[in-house]
Amino acid sequence: MKISIINGPNLNLLGRRERKIYGDMTFESFFQKLKAEFSDIDLEYFQSNVEGELVSFVQQAGKSSDGIILNAAGYTHTSVVLADAVGSIDTPVIEVHISNILAREKYRHTSLIAPWCRGSLFGFGLNGYILALHAFVNRFVTK
Amino acid sequence: MKISIINGPNLNLLGRRERKIYGDMTFESFFQKLKAEFSDIDLEYFQSNVEGELVSFVQQAGKSSDGIILNAAGYTHTSVVLADAVGSIDTPVIEVHISNILAREKYRHTSLIAPWCRGSLFGFGLNGYILALHAFVNRFVTK
Amino acid sequence: MKISIINGPNLNLLGRRERKIYGDMTFESFFQKLKAEFSDIDLEYFQSNVEGELVSFVQQAGKSSDGIILNAAGYTHTSVVLADAVGSIDTPVIEVHISNILAREKYRHTSLIAPWCRGSLFGFGLNGYILALHAFVNRFVTK
Amino acid sequence: MKISIINGPNLNLLGRRERKIYGDMTFESFFQKLKAEFSDIDLEYFQSNVEGELVSFVQQAGKSSDGIILNAAGYTHTSVVLADAVGSIDTPVIEVHISNILAREKYRHTSLIAPWCRGSLFGFGLNGYILALHAFVNRFVTK
Amino acid sequence: MKISIINGPNLNLLGRRERKIYGDMTFESFFQKLKAEFSDIDLEYFQSNVEGELVSFVQQAGKSSDGIILNAAGYTHTSVVLADAVGSIDTPVIEVHISNILAREKYRHTSLIAPWCRGSLFGFGLNGYILALHAFVNRFVTK
Amino acid sequence: MKISIINGPNLNLLGRRERKIYGDMTFESFFQKLKAEFSDIDLEYFQSNVEGELVSFVQQAGKSSDGIILNAAGYTHTSVVLADAVGSIDTPVIEVHISNILAREKYRHTSLIAPWCRGSLFGFGLNGYILALHAFVNRFVTK
Amino acid sequence: MKISIINGPNLNLLGRRERKIYGDMTFESFFQKLKAEFSDIDLEYFQSNVEGELVSFVQQAGKSSDGIILNAAGYTHTSVVLADAVGSIDTPVIEVHISNILAREKYRHTSLIAPWCRGSLFGFGLNGYILALHAFVNRFVTK
Amino acid sequence: MKISIINGPNLNLLGRRERKIYGDMTFESFFQKLKAEFSDIDLEYFQSNVEGELVSFVQQAGKSSDGIILNAAGYTHTSVVLADAVGSIDTPVIEVHISNILAREKYRHTSLIAPWCRGSLFGFGLNGYILALHAFVNRFVTK
Amino acid sequence: MKISIINGPNLNLLGRRERKIYGDMTFESFFQKLKAEFSDIDLEYFQSNVEGELVSFVQQAGKSSDGIILNAAGYTHTSVVLADAVGSIDTPVIEVHISNILAREKYRHTSLIAPWCRGSLFGFGLNGYILALHAFVNRFVTK
Amino acid sequence: MKISIINGPNLNLLGRRERKIYGDMTFESFFQKLKAEFSDIDLEYFQSNVEGELVSFVQQAGKSSDGIILNAAGYTHTSVVLADAVGSIDTPVIEVHISNILAREKYRHTSLIAPWCRGSLFGFGLNGYILALHAFVNRFVTK
Amino acid sequence: MKISIINGPNLNLLGRRERKIYGDMTFESFFQKLKAEFSDIDLEYFQSNVEGELVSFVQQAGKSSDGIILNAAGYTHTSVVLADAVGSIDTPVIEVHISNILAREKYRHTSLIAPWCRGSLFGFGLNGYILALHAFVNRFVTK
Amino acid sequence: MKISIINGPNLNLLGRRERKIYGDMTFESFFQKLKAEFSDIDLEYFQSNVEGELVSFVQQAGKSSDGIILNAAGYTHTSVVLADAVGSIDTPVIEVHISNILAREKYRHTSLIAPWCRGSLFGFGLNGYILALHAFVNRFVTK
Repeated sequence: MKISIINGPNLNLLGRRERKIYGDMTFESFFQKLKAEFSDIDLEYFQSNVEGELVSFVQQAGKSSDGIILNAAGYTHTSVVLADAVGSIDTPVIEVHISNILAREKYRHTSLIAPWCRGSLFGFGLNGYILALHAFVNRFVTK
Repeated sequence: MKISIINGPNLNLLGRRERKIYGDMTFESFFQKLKAEFSDIDLEYFQSNVEGELVSFVQQAGKSSDGIILNAAGYTHTSVVLADAVGSIDTPVIEVHISNILAREKYRHTSLIAPWCRGSLFGFGLNGYILALHAFVNRFVTK
Repeated sequence: MKISIINGPNLNLLGRRERKIYGDMTFESFFQKLKAEFSDIDLEYFQSNVEGELVSFVQQAGKSSDGIILNAAGYTHTSVVLADAVGSIDTPVIEVHISNILAREKYRHTSLIAPWCRGSLFGFGLNGYILALHAFVNRFVTK
Repeated sequence: MKISIINGPNLNLLGRRERKIYGDMTFESFFQKLKAEFSDIDLEYFQSNVEGELVSFVQQAGKSSDGIILNAAGYTHTSVVLADAVGSIDTPVIEVHISNILAREKYRHTSLIAPWCRGSLFGFGLNGYILALHAFVNRFVTK
Repeated sequence: MKISIINGPNLNLLGRRERKIYGDMTFESFFQKLKAEFSDIDLEYFQSNVEGELVSFVQQAGKSSDGIILNAAGYTHTSVVLADAVGSIDTPVIEVHISNILAREKYRHTSLIAPWCRGSLFGFGLNGYILALHAFVNRFVTK
Repeated sequence: MKISIINGPNLNLLGRRERKIYGDMTFESFFQKLKAEFSDIDLEYFQSNVEGELVSFVQQAGKSSDGIILNAAGYTHTSVVLADAVGSIDTPVIEVHISNILAREKYRHTSLIAPWCRGSLFGFGLNGYILALHAFVNRFVTK
Repeated sequence: MKISIINGPNLNLLGRRERKIYGDMTFESFFQKLKAEFSDIDLEYFQSNVEGELVSFVQQAGKSSDGIILNAAGYTHTSVVLADAVGSIDTPVIEVHISNILAREKYRHTSLIAPWCRGSLFGFGLNGYILALHAFVNRFVTK
Repeated sequence: MKISIINGPNLNLLGRRERKIYGDMTFESFFQKLKAEFSDIDLEYFQSNVEGELVSFVQQAGKSSDGIILNAAGYTHTSVVLADAVGSIDTPVIEVHISNILAREKYRHTSLIAPWCRGSLFGFGLNGYILALHAFVNRFVTK
Repeated sequence: MKISIINGPNLNLLGRRERKIYGDMTFESFFQKLKAEFSDIDLEYFQSNVEGELVSFVQQAGKSSDGIILNAAGYTHTSVVLADAVGSIDTPVIEVHISNILAREKYRHTSLIAPWCRGSLFGFGLNGYILALHAFVNRFVTK
Repeated sequence: MKISIINGPNLNLLGRRERKIYGDMTFESFFQKLKAEFSDIDLEYFQSNVEGELVSFVQQAGKSSDGIILNAAGYTHTSVVLADAVGSIDTPVIEVHISNILAREKYRHTSLIAPWCRGSLFGFGLNGYILALHAFVNRFVTK
Repeated sequence: MKISIINGPNLNLLGRRERKIYGDMTFESFFQKLKAEFSDIDLEYFQSNVEGELVSFVQQAGKSSDGIILNAAGYTHTSVVLADAVGSIDTPVIEVHISNILAREKYRHTSLIAPWCRGSLFGFGLNGYILALHAFVNRFVTK
Repeated sequence: MKISIINGPNLNLLGRRERKIYGDMTFESFFQKLKAEFSDIDLEYFQSNVEGELVSFVQQAGKSSDGIILNAAGYTHTSVVLADAVGSIDTPVIEVHISNILAREKYRHTSLIAPWCRGSLFGFGLNGYILALHAFVNRFVTK
């Protein structure tokens, strides 16, 4: 089973800035931990600040992966284009946000991407990625 | 560890009606399965169609439980009162919805309850309850 | 043929208060008149001020009756939960309002319940219940 | 007793197009059936696609008829002018719609005409006209 | 003179939780203090989390009391049904809120109940109930 | 203890016009009555139709008084500037309105000033000023 | 000098219905009075309930008249089409309304036609037409 | 007959600035012309940039004049306070605007003052004041 | 192949007024040019200012033509009724506007008709009709 | 004559996914067909998922091409930046969408780009590109 | 070169209250510092809490000064009248706000005055006035 | 002191197109002038049309520079992502716009970026960059 984790803009700063909110673990270190914990899964990681590169990667993962975990960060609320990409593939997508976006600023309450996702997970911190992997491993989400 | 599962209105019909959408397992059977799978946890289950009874039970579980899994169903979008109850207790609450409410009718896109929850899980079907229990068991969510 | 008449909050005051608007007949007396006039029908009457009790009764009538006449009063405009209940049963429901809600305050112009009803009748006073029964008797509305 | 039935735009197509939704009876045939069933009433029928002609006919029926059954179709939601006409006469008007407009597209949820009507009947198909006639015959609606 | 004090949802927690905001006096103790201070008045107290029970109690107090002090808490902003109950009785009602609702979250700025109240008192803490009683005692508010 | 009563525009007409609504006592006479009844308090009265003069007086009373009773009349709903003035002083302010502004025209439902006030009192007529003074005298409101 | 007076829908009822509001003079009688009073002007009168006929007449008067007095009644607020017609001619147009539309229902506060008019006159009753003629006679409004 | 003309803010610049739009006649000169033309009327003129001074003058003219011509300029759209003043007097008020406010920026389309005026006149330039005087002279507008 | 060109209100003025915007060719001359250029097609032309006549003609062309080119002008944005007519026929309809309505006033940005059209063409001037005919001739649009 | 065809995000999937909606021809194949059919034109093709790359290409084509056919896909509704780019060049741009965006989800009804385009073509499928080329070839659109 | 600095309501409190936000320098002291630093400029200072006095001073400075630095404080967001005054003069105006109004409460995000200003400077504290003077001195802003 | 100037989309066209609005100096030439004038500062310049590249550069400058001058152009109004980047760094950012965005189209009145900036400067043309540098040089803005 191959799972792609796709992180959107500013998530490359994780563990480097705003540590009080997000903790001091970089996503790279966390990803190593994930690979150790879920050694049976072929895990792939991609991060970009560029909307169109995320679109392209979603398209490609739509062909090569069995599941996608997508944290679109700020694009969640504005990107018709990324939503279109998620909507055009068959690979199941789980939406993850580190914080609970429904509990933050008003403009973060909508997700243009959610309508095309099998499940959404908000507010569990980095553990949200682990829960999402559980969902794939336990076949809670299938094509 | 004691966990209270609280289901809101119409969820007593689960498995009895609209089976094409929700499957044909009643929540009672599913709850038995949960208790078997998570035998280390003291699991409690409450369902009511009455908003005020849900408020009262949330208040009580706020005193007696270590965690609450709350599916407020239709009250999610309209009940200031239930949100106030969740906001007034310290016990961590995880919000679960069987379907992805962000992908349904416009008026289901808001959750008045989410701002007071530690995490939100939408669209994983009954498995959402299992993922929420994982989160409690793995101490992803603590007081 | 069994028909359930379900009245929402404050309709227990009918004939006792605000007589200039609603006349001075209590619903109980009117219900006796209805039973006399429609003696072939097994008529049942339920009133509650409690949203969740109305939900429960709608669920039950959905199993035991051939038709429901529902006047949800003030819950018409706010209760996602009651609308969900009506939406989850197969028994045909006719919505009745004593006054014409489209001619009153702005916030009474919407009915969350109407989308799940076979027909809606506004503004005929208590006679609206008679017209609704005509509709059931004449098989204008069937499962 | 003289009753005028006034149908708005596109209702001349009834029974000729979109038969799956509206059945295959033309309104002319249905009107013959109505006249047979309610032979004591002087029934009059008018249809027009032109907003101003409907205004003129409402004005005239306001002088010559004892009751009006008005299905303003698409003008229901946009015509201040037709609402003004209904508001300026004393003859009681019952509003009828074949489908339940509160259960269709958002822009069909308002009726500019309802505030001036004695009663509104939505969603009973052609039978709505019969129920409206019952209301007039039984003196549920009077000047 | 008989005065009914009616408290809505979550006010049963007063003095037990969120003490920093609301102080550490329970409403029951406060009510004893009130009875001592206003010994000439027949004071009655009712609290419920259930919207419909509040409706029923308002209806009943409308018959048996000379004045009502109503703190509808979260239902203030959402309950058409409770507003309808207050609107249907003649007994004068004073609306009290412990905090100044116009100074809190946007969705707490409206009161559906205020239009039917003789006076509204926000932000005086528990003392708001005392001021309301002063208003009744001094005949500032009469039928 | 020094208390300033500040009245906004058109309140100089009190008792002279629209007597059916506001009674026929001028505020000047009422103020004499207040001074007699609360002879222990150093009472000061100011009225102006000019927004900026009200701002200046609020600033000054913020330095010289122990409490302010403010009825900003029509400026309540539009004056960011008066709200800023109230927000910039430490003296406690109680907002009073003769009628219940939440029960009048839509545009009177907001108070830009309320967020900076310790308490708000609507709908008690001139007695609202008396209740506000009670609140200061009884130390319900302190710096 | 030739002036065309164009009246929109329902104005043919003037003086025949709703006399308490509009008086009991028909527009035809009033028009005779106008012709007597302004005998130097070539006065023309047209009324229609049909939006498109008003459009056509405005187009024609745009070629043959020196000035137009237009009371579009209910079309004022909804007719893009009539506004387009007024906007496409050079003849100066004065807008008249018998009542003050800015003081009536919210939906009557806009005039789609006003942006293309030289002047607007609301609330002077039938005298509004006289004032409009004064404006043309005194050359207050010219091509 | 005594008529007060009241001009709001920036109208003191008339004829001195923006001459292309407003012409090069000052209001003072125009007022002399008016007095000559309407020598039978006791004409009074007041201008202020200060909202509260306009309120005070409207109150005073409400006692001493038989009619008021009010051009509130920019306060037309924002001043609840000036509207309250106009609403509290019995003297008939005619609203005049030099340009057609319904044809300008969106925020100039509302008049808070119009609901209390007997008539409104927009877009006739300075001639609007003459037409308003005609209306008073011809007794089109009376107490 | 028979194609009907249907033009809405004010398009009869084409080439006669506002020539700077629309050129100085009348639609009649242009139609002759079209017939010459597309001599293989049976071309029909209808224009009306009356909404209901356009509805009737669309209904008729829905029976007799193979394709419709519709420029509803100002009715595009307001006519539910015309949209209903287009929605009730099977003949393919192409929507044409001479100017680009999405680049003009805000209220011209919606087309109630577009949802029922096979294609929409804005901003090509009269050439838009030619492109629409190309689309029919090349069988880009078929039943 | 040189024409640039610029396609926005996800259009690289054409013919590979969602074939039921968009057919099974890739844009590359279609482009070969176009080049064959319009062999006199120097045709250039560019696609990107990245908003800023589209901006840069529009800028460049603004210098080197005689016309641009732009299908901005999802950026149509959100990209101020792409609209600014189109607005800053003189080369005529025709906007093409494969489906009729005015007939799809509400958020697809606006085009930020349309105000700067000479013409817009929606709903003709891939044939829309052909019609746009016709428009350029026939000189319907020129600098 | 003569420059007028005009400060709106509550800015007279600067340095006296809310020192944590605004520092403890009064504007008067700051103004002395400014005069010392920009000794070549004829600097004038005016402050008022009264909207209309600000209007009058802007009008006057429009005649006597070469530049205006305007901090309208709370009137920025509500005063059509002050905006009209700024719009009617030719003297260049620079808008200054001590805090960044776009980063504060929603209702402070609009400036009615900005459209008539040559430049706007927000959030630089008192230094904003120095930067504005730099702009005038360096002839960045000229008539 | 190192200062980074970051320009968003289309600003690479400066001086090459739309010269009437923006002048005919390219930003590159202007940047040379700046470096000459502020030779003590280590000035860095970056421009990109790509949202994500701007995000990345802001992140990097957040580590290496002492101050950032950011003109996000069209992304100002739509980019949650760029705002997040600015919000996540400690380096002080000054927002500059060449034109006064509050005086242009409605959709340019918001800045998602302003809440995270120390100061905002609109409408001074290229001189805005000079004023921003003054602010850094004079230590008006510090970490």
